[in-house]
Amino acid sequence: MTAFNQHAVRRMIQEWLMEDIGTGDVTTNAAVAPETQAKAIIHAKQEGILAGVQIAESVFHEVDPSISFRTLMQDGEAVKVGSIIAEAEGPARSLLLGERLALNLLQRMSGIATKCRTFADAVEGLPVRVVDTRKTTPGHRLLEKYAVRIGGAHNHRFGLYDAVMIKDNHIKAAGGIQAAVEAARAAIPHTMKIEVEVEQAHELEQAIEAGADIIMLDNMPLEAMRAAVARIREQAPHVVIEASGGVTLDTVRAIAETGVDVISAGGLTSSVATLDISLDLNERKERRV
Amino acid sequence: MTAFNQHAVRRMIQEWLMEDIGTGDVTTNAAVAPETQAKAIIHAKQEGILAGVQIAESVFHEVDPSISFRTLMQDGEAVKVGSIIAEAEGPARSLLLGERLALNLLQRMSGIATKCRTFADAVEGLPVRVVDTRKTTPGHRLLEKYAVRIGGAHNHRFGLYDAVMIKDNHIKAAGGIQAAVEAARAAIPHTMKIEVEVEQAHELEQAIEAGADIIMLDNMPLEAMRAAVARIREQAPHVVIEASGGVTLDTVRAIAETGVDVISAGGLTSSVATLDISLDLNERKERRV
Amino acid sequence: MTAFNQHAVRRMIQEWLMEDIGTGDVTTNAAVAPETQAKAIIHAKQEGILAGVQIAESVFHEVDPSISFRTLMQDGEAVKVGSIIAEAEGPARSLLLGERLALNLLQRMSGIATKCRTFADAVEGLPVRVVDTRKTTPGHRLLEKYAVRIGGAHNHRFGLYDAVMIKDNHIKAAGGIQAAVEAARAAIPHTMKIEVEVEQAHELEQAIEAGADIIMLDNMPLEAMRAAVARIREQAPHVVIEASGGVTLDTVRAIAETGVDVISAGGLTSSVATLDISLDLNERKERRV
Amino acid sequence: MTAFNQHAVRRMIQEWLMEDIGTGDVTTNAAVAPETQAKAIIHAKQEGILAGVQIAESVFHEVDPSISFRTLMQDGEAVKVGSIIAEAEGPARSLLLGERLALNLLQRMSGIATKCRTFADAVEGLPVRVVDTRKTTPGHRLLEKYAVRIGGAHNHRFGLYDAVMIKDNHIKAAGGIQAAVEAARAAIPHTMKIEVEVEQAHELEQAIEAGADIIMLDNMPLEAMRAAVARIREQAPHVVIEASGGVTLDTVRAIAETGVDVISAGGLTSSVATLDISLDLNERKERRV
Amino acid sequence: MTAFNQHAVRRMIQEWLMEDIGTGDVTTNAAVAPETQAKAIIHAKQEGILAGVQIAESVFHEVDPSISFRTLMQDGEAVKVGSIIAEAEGPARSLLLGERLALNLLQRMSGIATKCRTFADAVEGLPVRVVDTRKTTPGHRLLEKYAVRIGGAHNHRFGLYDAVMIKDNHIKAAGGIQAAVEAARAAIPHTMKIEVEVEQAHELEQAIEAGADIIMLDNMPLEAMRAAVARIREQAPHVVIEASGGVTLDTVRAIAETGVDVISAGGLTSSVATLDISLDLNERKERRV
Amino acid sequence: MTAFNQHAVRRMIQEWLMEDIGTGDVTTNAAVAPETQAKAIIHAKQEGILAGVQIAESVFHEVDPSISFRTLMQDGEAVKVGSIIAEAEGPARSLLLGERLALNLLQRMSGIATKCRTFADAVEGLPVRVVDTRKTTPGHRLLEKYAVRIGGAHNHRFGLYDAVMIKDNHIKAAGGIQAAVEAARAAIPHTMKIEVEVEQAHELEQAIEAGADIIMLDNMPLEAMRAAVARIREQAPHVVIEASGGVTLDTVRAIAETGVDVISAGGLTSSVATLDISLDLNERKERRV
Repeated sequence: MTAFNQHAVRRMIQEWLMEDIGTGDVTTNAAVAPETQAKAIIHAKQEGILAGVQIAESVFHEVDPSISFRTLMQDGEAVKVGSIIAEAEGPARSLLLGERLALNLLQRMSGIATKCRTFADAVEGLPVRVVDTRKTTPGHRLLEKYAVRIGGAHNHRFGLYDAVMIKDNHIKAAGGIQAAVEAARAAIPHTMKIEVEVEQAHELEQAIEAGADIIMLDNMPLEAMRAAVARIREQAPHVVIEASGGVTLDTVRAIAETGVDVISAGGLTSSVATLDISLDLNERKERRV
Repeated sequence: MTAFNQHAVRRMIQEWLMEDIGTGDVTTNAAVAPETQAKAIIHAKQEGILAGVQIAESVFHEVDPSISFRTLMQDGEAVKVGSIIAEAEGPARSLLLGERLALNLLQRMSGIATKCRTFADAVEGLPVRVVDTRKTTPGHRLLEKYAVRIGGAHNHRFGLYDAVMIKDNHIKAAGGIQAAVEAARAAIPHTMKIEVEVEQAHELEQAIEAGADIIMLDNMPLEAMRAAVARIREQAPHVVIEASGGVTLDTVRAIAETGVDVISAGGLTSSVATLDISLDLNERKERRV
Repeated sequence: MTAFNQHAVRRMIQEWLMEDIGTGDVTTNAAVAPETQAKAIIHAKQEGILAGVQIAESVFHEVDPSISFRTLMQDGEAVKVGSIIAEAEGPARSLLLGERLALNLLQRMSGIATKCRTFADAVEGLPVRVVDTRKTTPGHRLLEKYAVRIGGAHNHRFGLYDAVMIKDNHIKAAGGIQAAVEAARAAIPHTMKIEVEVEQAHELEQAIEAGADIIMLDNMPLEAMRAAVARIREQAPHVVIEASGGVTLDTVRAIAETGVDVISAGGLTSSVATLDISLDLNERKERRV
Repeated sequence: MTAFNQHAVRRMIQEWLMEDIGTGDVTTNAAVAPETQAKAIIHAKQEGILAGVQIAESVFHEVDPSISFRTLMQDGEAVKVGSIIAEAEGPARSLLLGERLALNLLQRMSGIATKCRTFADAVEGLPVRVVDTRKTTPGHRLLEKYAVRIGGAHNHRFGLYDAVMIKDNHIKAAGGIQAAVEAARAAIPHTMKIEVEVEQAHELEQAIEAGADIIMLDNMPLEAMRAAVARIREQAPHVVIEASGGVTLDTVRAIAETGVDVISAGGLTSSVATLDISLDLNERKERRV
Repeated sequence: MTAFNQHAVRRMIQEWLMEDIGTGDVTTNAAVAPETQAKAIIHAKQEGILAGVQIAESVFHEVDPSISFRTLMQDGEAVKVGSIIAEAEGPARSLLLGERLALNLLQRMSGIATKCRTFADAVEGLPVRVVDTRKTTPGHRLLEKYAVRIGGAHNHRFGLYDAVMIKDNHIKAAGGIQAAVEAARAAIPHTMKIEVEVEQAHELEQAIEAGADIIMLDNMPLEAMRAAVARIREQAPHVVIEASGGVTLDTVRAIAETGVDVISAGGLTSSVATLDISLDLNERKERRV
Repeated sequence: MTAFNQHAVRRMIQEWLMEDIGTGDVTTNAAVAPETQAKAIIHAKQEGILAGVQIAESVFHEVDPSISFRTLMQDGEAVKVGSIIAEAEGPARSLLLGERLALNLLQRMSGIATKCRTFADAVEGLPVRVVDTRKTTPGHRLLEKYAVRIGGAHNHRFGLYDAVMIKDNHIKAAGGIQAAVEAARAAIPHTMKIEVEVEQAHELEQAIEAGADIIMLDNMPLEAMRAAVARIREQAPHVVIEASGGVTLDTVRAIAETGVDVISAGGLTSSVATLDISLDLNERKERRV
């Protein structure tokens, strides 16, 4: 359920390592002998949902394949202050090279998973999914959308290429909802869905009429939303209904109770507090044989 | 003062565009004719400090060099709700292709600048600089460190390669502060500085003795920090003193008042709320000639 | 309707130019003076459907932005022997550098469009679309799927990432159609569709029951196909029905007449004859000013 | 005899995998557990000449180094319907990820080898080699030229950089055959050959006179070709004679019988039917230990 | 005559700029305002042969396309102390960014051209060419081989891929010269030559017998070389004769006088003194409009 | 002390291998069977200081991970004629593929180390370090600066990004030394140093006054240099003093005796003679099991 393209992630990790290492780690190269072995303990300093352990492992593997990495907790588990997440053993230089990138990723991804879990919990028991948007950090969409899933929320489309999302500007440009949906239907694979964003009742009627697969109710008051849901369920029972706009932890349950299927919230991946995760290094005097 | 390597940024923008566009923008390609021209207005929906206007311009330039971009506000300026930041004119398809990436960057960078300004304001009048750390988003260090400067804070080293930072693990591995500093001094260019992290008074003495260029007081109580500052000023007046650990908007001024030169805070670039910035597209019916 | 990610294509063109040019065009560099200007005429030597003119233009633009390229025929138009497709003027060296790559692409893409047009013509008047598969030339999927659309056929999913396609192996691994569909539905965005491949009647029932969005009838005899279509239309009118297996120009209309919505044929992009297109170069003695 | 730059091929495979996998295989990730092991059998469904087994192995190795791949038939061998070509064992997810790319390459390369074998057979017993041209699929030249060799045909130059080929346009630009050959000879390494394309008898004389290493008889009638061969053998016995233009399986032997050394045919790598090769996956329930 | 693949060079320049600029030019960004315009004069401080002016231009063009570059001297011309080679005008920041890379390339390439000219002069009047080897600086082969040509020497093969060079190890592995040449002839395009390296008289006979296109006399005394030349001219007048080993400016003419066609010298591209070329920047106060 | 970013070097090696191998090693592929094993001995043919053994190992490892490489001498050791540096065993084809690149790097790096050792020896006993500059071969800075350290000299800054170097042009642009230093100090991290280049006494005073961390005495006569050193030691004892301009093996000790801390010499990495190092291949008939 939670896999992603690991080949793509590996490439990103290689680029990100270059960003931090540059021409070389001047401190470690001077102070730590190449043969020194050490053990790193990755542990939580804050409560939350863990996401990104495999990524941290991949970072250390890219730095040095001779590092052995032992996962003690899995993505999706709740960590407490002091929880030991993983251990890595190998050349001290290599552990120090990978430390910052591994933590930067773990902290950010776990921050997203932790935030998503609060949204998922807020709508518990209701037949609705909270989903992310394209408001992700450039270059991190794959990882952030994975962290969203780990936190119990769900994904919206991955980019401009894997689903049609007809907004105001497209409608104007195409000359109406009907024309826009028709143009899209003709152009796209039969495997792809069409979503139409509506704000007003007459737009809703047009979207239903045009045969949208998904209708997004944008920034509607709860009352209007409830009416729209009723109307769609009656006229087009196969349509997926999405609510969007002004979604916060305070409002999400009320929105869910209008009966929509999906609630999208940009905040799942923006304005996220990182989860405090740390790495302790214990040098081991013995050399590796 | 605030420039960065624009060639490197251009490469990143190209990668990030691929992430969003993938095989193509199925919606726009279906609904918007290639000859449709439009004008986009980028405006603030929240108060804060602007950062990243040039980056937004670069995004649109990469998407389509025929887009003309007019900057109305400069990085570092305070935006209010409704402030118009920039205008872009060109093919509607191109504007829609670049919109999300441009906004994702502007919102994140302005969020950082805005947060940094609050820290800079908090220590106003004191001879101290608040600086960032390596806790940046992987792949975004160049842009985030730029946004930090725009917000009135300053930068710490850019990576593992441009300054020596001797921490606990390095000291243990090298066999003491003196040995670690000596090893570093011998290995690095004369153009590079050596920073030593100390927690205890005896470490402080060793760091002074070893000839550190910068001494970082890590997680020290204010009282101890004041004593350390006095000791360093007396023994080694050229040393730059940095404080680190537990730095928040609430504590930063008190820390600054201990007399340190620099206060480093990972939070400047992590756990940052994005600034709400939006793009409105107004289609223009006339074709380009 | 027929656009694609031009930034991605530009990158591919750059790689492909390197493949042909290597360390440099030894013949042209020796025999043709850098200041020699010329005009190239791209013309058809065989009847068919044109596809890739923009790509040819992009090739010459990458080679040398000073080349001016004039398109005389558009993608999708029928060419005859002697049809002039485009003209390019500029430095003779640059025209010779780009010639082979431009033609290789034009010939292959037009070959696909020409083949697709025969399939599209064969089902004319029937409410069905003929679609491609993932049997494309590695590295050319974007361009080949574009050529398919130009030829009047349509696209299936673009890769493993933009739609769920549950085949035999997935069903076995998941423990049945119901389980596979449920697992997929839980994992994927609400914007994505699920297709299930069935060969037998009982599988068909399970696919309908499980709520598949698309059902693919794999290698079914026409009789069985007709029965399956009837069954699906009755039980699940929103389901899209796809036929696959043994689709040739001879069989495609009979398959279409069973009432399926979509017919997928790997042959649209494999085993394709290139369309004979040629480039004539007329040197112009005058220098450019 | 048949080796190629495997480092270059590995890079291409990495790019091509990205094209198919994109953000991840949504079907397999949902339906197949990561610990499921399976065995894949690659077998022929059509008669022909095998080419690309190593490439298929490289694809699976790039996807997942833990896959074990056993080659049962070698490139160049004749496959029949049902011939088992290779077996691959490993994680089912990994086998499914690599399947399509491995087959797309095997099918295309074997298609080329099969076609080339028919040309090689057609000239059997004659002292001539049939060679390919630069009409290869962009990005695939290395692999297609390898498949040509596997099929018993030979290669022409690899690109614009490894041999001089003076055509009509170069002759006009340089001011004659003599001038063109002289300019080339002066510019190129002594390790490189010069080929001149001629259509008329007077051009032939000039090419001989100029000291061409290879003379290509372009689109000559058989009678004229025979005369040209006789003339060259008499005047310049070291010159390699190449025939080109209108070469098909029907005409190739007659052309060969004129006594030329080499016959070049663009069709060896364009307009090629893929060879039908398939992969069956047998899931194995036991986990890997 | 002296052109090279400019697209490949442009890529290298982009990489090399990153090496020097890293995260940004901290000095210039602080001290020079972005609107400051300046004029740079590139001039020689030493006598020699100029090579690389176009490369220098490309560097500045990559840094900033708004820089205008005026070439005053061409590659191959002799510079004296004080010769003005080129002028560049544009933003001072951009000129300072490109300065070091442009000079590093110009100095190295001109150094090679200058050294090659001395070798070319040393054999003046004799029908021989002095050629380079594969002992080039990694990543610079294209540029160094170009500089060799500019200096009046010539190129040997460009790499392992564009000519066969059978050395001792290949002969042993193949089981003799005859076997090695036959294996190569069978495998390579008819457009490619075969060179055999010989040290002894019996090897020479075998190489002639085997039909080598080029025979390299490796480390032979002059007397033996003369005998070898005579023998080859008599037995195989079409063979190109190359001498190699211990070639210096002192020995090259005597070697040439033995009658060989080609003399290869690794020293043309290794152990080369750079030519002293400098850039002066004159700031212009007026802003660009 | 002498480590560098091995991930960055690995990338460069991959690029450089492509440069030499191109489409494949035509000679070895024809003459050497894939199963042939061999042993390569890398040995010195000239006296000097060894640098780059690890790099040579990395080259062979990139070519073929099955090659086993045994290092017999370490970087920094003095080699004599006949010294055996390393042995590599594995497939003969792989050893031949890597040979040229490994040697080209070893020879160049050892040439630099050897030259640097002569400079280091020339100032022996004096409290001074001889340092390199940015006059390195494009793309090789990391390796060349490493070789400098191996030879006993030291590094100046790595690029435009890791230290401020205020020269004449910056001073003019900023409006004086004071202004330039202030602008830089405000913009850069507190971890970075500022160097100011001075030629005249009044500039020296300004540099001291402005608080430069490093003062470079550019092209000063020895007498003036001594005076400058005295003045700086008195006024600003923490300032590092660097001498530059006209530094040769003949002048370096006299310059060092003026009391400066650092002497920078572009010649350490330009105009360097390669060290003659060779590889002998001994084929082993037995196959690998």
